[in-house]
Amino acid sequence: MISNDNTEFRDLVSLTHGFAVILVEPQLGENVGMVARAMGNCGLWDLRLVGPRDGWPNSAAIAASSGADLIIHAARVFSSTAEAIADLQTVLAATARPRDMTTEVFTPREAAKRLRQDVVAGANAGVLFGKEAMGLDNDNVALANGVLSVPLNPKFTSLNLAQAVLLVGYEWFQTADRTPGEGLALSKETRPANKQEMLGLFEHLESELDICGFLRVKKKRPVMVRNIRNIFQRARLTEQEVRTLRGVVSGLANHSKKPLE
Amino acid sequence: MISNDNTEFRDLVSLTHGFAVILVEPQLGENVGMVARAMGNCGLWDLRLVGPRDGWPNSAAIAASSGADLIIHAARVFSSTAEAIADLQTVLAATARPRDMTTEVFTPREAAKRLRQDVVAGANAGVLFGKEAMGLDNDNVALANGVLSVPLNPKFTSLNLAQAVLLVGYEWFQTADRTPGEGLALSKETRPANKQEMLGLFEHLESELDICGFLRVKKKRPVMVRNIRNIFQRARLTEQEVRTLRGVVSGLANHSKKPLE
Repeated sequence: MISNDNTEFRDLVSLTHGFAVILVEPQLGENVGMVARAMGNCGLWDLRLVGPRDGWPNSAAIAASSGADLIIHAARVFSSTAEAIADLQTVLAATARPRDMTTEVFTPREAAKRLRQDVVAGANAGVLFGKEAMGLDNDNVALANGVLSVPLNPKFTSLNLAQAVLLVGYEWFQTADRTPGEGLALSKETRPANKQEMLGLFEHLESELDICGFLRVKKKRPVMVRNIRNIFQRARLTEQEVRTLRGVVSGLANHSKKPLE
Repeated sequence: MISNDNTEFRDLVSLTHGFAVILVEPQLGENVGMVARAMGNCGLWDLRLVGPRDGWPNSAAIAASSGADLIIHAARVFSSTAEAIADLQTVLAATARPRDMTTEVFTPREAAKRLRQDVVAGANAGVLFGKEAMGLDNDNVALANGVLSVPLNPKFTSLNLAQAVLLVGYEWFQTADRTPGEGLALSKETRPANKQEMLGLFEHLESELDICGFLRVKKKRPVMVRNIRNIFQRARLTEQEVRTLRGVVSGLANHSKKPLE
């Protein structure tokens, strides 16, 4: 659920300032609701509808929005695409169909980058999406600066409306997101092990392996020690995990020292 | 519709070799069908189901797959996650929920990059997705090399199953796709204008603007000429469009030369 707490709504507005989703003649209210949900996922709130077939407001849209009803309630209805985009400086038209028109074509990734640059420079941007079955007609495409096409399996390109909005919104969100591509999520109350702790583990393990005879071939010992150390170096251990592994080593070693019954 | 022509199916298989989508205890057949559709969009075909609640095969899944029924028919059912991933070398677990576990966390973009590297090197890869309402439990997460989390609006993260698969599949597809980020789509039977054609247009326009007196202030003429040239340089005109614009200039100029009636 999007909270209807005012502070959170303001945050959402500020995060997504300057990017409008314009649905041209959408048909099923349910699809508009699913678009709102996808917009909520991507932090977008500015939904504009041009001539929605089933009227507006639409209870099916609210039901399908899965909690993104703030977006549904804030949606604005226009009678023409030209009116819906009058205040926007940069508009792209989402379409999968090749057309016999000369126009710039952007991937969602490049489109998001360019639109973000425009918005940072003070512009308002938006993307036009056509009706479910037909997409946008050429007159609507000619209202836009260019075309946005999603590179997907050329043998099976049909995306539903909400999926198309999701992919565009996802790329838009990524242009402002700072999540590192990869990171180690740590469980609470621990931290990555330092090298003193790692060496403590290695020396503990190697001394037990000397005692049990696993490293008895002197010529092979240096290579085996390095190979075993590398296994644990790759695992990016936490301080807690080093202690756990030392417990494992002690447990196994002590067990083997017990007399057989 | 995905064609069931054998050649096309082989192309599809070769494009997507080595990447499996594993649904752990999916509930509604309809959602499995929508996952298959999203996989079709992204050129993926290896669908694996662990203990689907509503049984398999499932007619609701076929109906919801919107033509991706080849994927549905090729889906394999397993009784445990461990069996479903036995032949895979690299497996990530898709989850939105933060967990008190120490694990590597990847964005879909970085995950796709790493998995593609592994697959190019000969490995088989896959991503685990949990059941609709609950996601994956921690035991399933611990079967994976790491976690995949989609960076989206932290106030509204709930993605449906097919949307999560779509975003992961989309990133996977992008790692192999060669579509340029931006390009000019040309209408048939034309090509970009060359500079001789552009200069022809400029000189034609400027000579008519001299005749009609628009460029009469000599001091301002060079700046105005440059400004007007820049407008058309930015437009990336085709040879056809240059001819159209020269017709426009002639049309306007000749009209103004006609005596008023």
